[in-house]
Amino acid sequence: MTGISEFDVIAKYLKPLAASAPGAFALSDDAAVLPDLPSGHAYVVTKDALAAGVHMRSDESPADMARKALRVNLSDLAAMGARPIGLFMALCLGADTDESFVQAFCTGLGADLKTFDVALMGGDIIRQPGPFIVSITAFGHAPRDRMLRRSGAQIGDTLWITGTIGDAALGLRAATGQLSGLKTADQEYLVDRYCIPQPRTKLGVRLIGLAHACIDVSDGLVADVGHICAGSALGCVIQSEKVPVSPAVRAVLAQNSDVLVDILTGGDDYELAFAAPERAAEQIRHLAAAASIQISSIGTFVSGHDVEVRDRNGDRIPIPSGGYRHV
Amino acid sequence: MTGISEFDVIAKYLKPLAASAPGAFALSDDAAVLPDLPSGHAYVVTKDALAAGVHMRSDESPADMARKALRVNLSDLAAMGARPIGLFMALCLGADTDESFVQAFCTGLGADLKTFDVALMGGDIIRQPGPFIVSITAFGHAPRDRMLRRSGAQIGDTLWITGTIGDAALGLRAATGQLSGLKTADQEYLVDRYCIPQPRTKLGVRLIGLAHACIDVSDGLVADVGHICAGSALGCVIQSEKVPVSPAVRAVLAQNSDVLVDILTGGDDYELAFAAPERAAEQIRHLAAAASIQISSIGTFVSGHDVEVRDRNGDRIPIPSGGYRHV
Repeated sequence: MTGISEFDVIAKYLKPLAASAPGAFALSDDAAVLPDLPSGHAYVVTKDALAAGVHMRSDESPADMARKALRVNLSDLAAMGARPIGLFMALCLGADTDESFVQAFCTGLGADLKTFDVALMGGDIIRQPGPFIVSITAFGHAPRDRMLRRSGAQIGDTLWITGTIGDAALGLRAATGQLSGLKTADQEYLVDRYCIPQPRTKLGVRLIGLAHACIDVSDGLVADVGHICAGSALGCVIQSEKVPVSPAVRAVLAQNSDVLVDILTGGDDYELAFAAPERAAEQIRHLAAAASIQISSIGTFVSGHDVEVRDRNGDRIPIPSGGYRHV
Repeated sequence: MTGISEFDVIAKYLKPLAASAPGAFALSDDAAVLPDLPSGHAYVVTKDALAAGVHMRSDESPADMARKALRVNLSDLAAMGARPIGLFMALCLGADTDESFVQAFCTGLGADLKTFDVALMGGDIIRQPGPFIVSITAFGHAPRDRMLRRSGAQIGDTLWITGTIGDAALGLRAATGQLSGLKTADQEYLVDRYCIPQPRTKLGVRLIGLAHACIDVSDGLVADVGHICAGSALGCVIQSEKVPVSPAVRAVLAQNSDVLVDILTGGDDYELAFAAPERAAEQIRHLAAAASIQISSIGTFVSGHDVEVRDRNGDRIPIPSGGYRHV
């Protein structure tokens, strides 16, 4: 990046993002200090890195890259029932990263920091000859003994899912010109869902004490429900007709029903999937409505260790194994 | 990286590094949980990213890359007087990163985690077409109201420095064949000092209550003492003949005394520079001796805002402005 030093990037674009966190010391010390927590609460920490051209399209706007990088981390915190506090960020500027990119990235990030009430607390800026990479470590807090885990689901628990499934997987196809015959509005909706996740931070914290286990759907619905099953030593039966899909996805399915498997296994939706006992159903629906978040019960946890998807006739829909996985 | 998935890398190489931290959940949940701290202590957090071919030579051994990535972060914690606890790590595997590289990297990291008694608590693995990059967020703890900062130095305080200065800057030259006429042992010593920092974690925590301000020398002695000056609204006079140098650096200086400025401004030594009142001198020497760390008093904090370096005749040695800077 010519014309501006890392020092200047920090002073001009990053320091303003740290203004609300006293422990960030205006990004001017060797390290930051995290605030005290309410009694009985613990820090919950997650870390996700994204590379332009790999996890984000290279032609995505810098502001959307910032939003996605922040939000995938906030989604992990939501899955633990944690309230987000702040983040540390390494910006690895690539060969093509110029100041206007950094400015737009930081403007987008700043808007999202306000939206989610979190502050930049520190980080690093490096230059390197590869693609632009952003690595974020996000912090939140949750009651130490009651936070949501992947383990803990019980036989008979309902499988719930927020939002709609499959939008991001089809959004990536739409963005890369692999999805034809759709209305422009549907195309745009799907691309937006791929580019800008909606982490369920408001609902996650409210599920503590209600949900037995929780995860965010980043690897794909079947894979991530499989992670709850593995953590809980259970199986799960998903009713395919109950899996919530958007009108845009429904339009794609109407053209080609084979896409169903891609919807069930595609990643990047960043919805919450969780297990909860039947007695909690009413309260869960109430909380979701209060947070204006769509919620659907789509299956049941059973003994075993497999995730089965069944159609309305009870026949099993074959799901190829696979799906990648984050730490 | 062919032949092994990110999932397998986690299971095979990273999980063992997280075994000592219960809150890491064997790297199998969405986020990790940090342990409780002693009363009155706060979490101190730092983040440094390093790219192969930029911050580490591309031909450095993977184990040494791991050591450097960990140690530069531990050095930041030491500068705050914080005791290290754990780290989160994003491994950004590059186009050329194969499994043997990852294995060697994790073996080196594992050895250093034992040395410094810290645990891997989480992170992410991505693949991207650029160089290998590692981004580490390291955690420690320190008494909330007494941790070491860059601010707080007082007029009349002594400027202390651990170890020797200039080794890393000349080590980089030696490693890239830009330093001739030295004995092989001296060359190897300097390269080692560049590649494998020695974070002063044992001394940093003992300086709480003694030092008024502290920093680690990553940007160069003059630049980093300048950061203490800026944070403390003071100036500092460094006596050049008191700046501790190794026999290898002394040998280079004997050939070319112009190298002195490079020694005073070169980065990557990762020694601690700190301000302390004269009355603490004896205790500081005692603590350093107990930790087997060389220590030197090399200057005095004064009113003003400049860092001046003076030779034994009292003449000012001109220092060009500059030096890069981390967050």
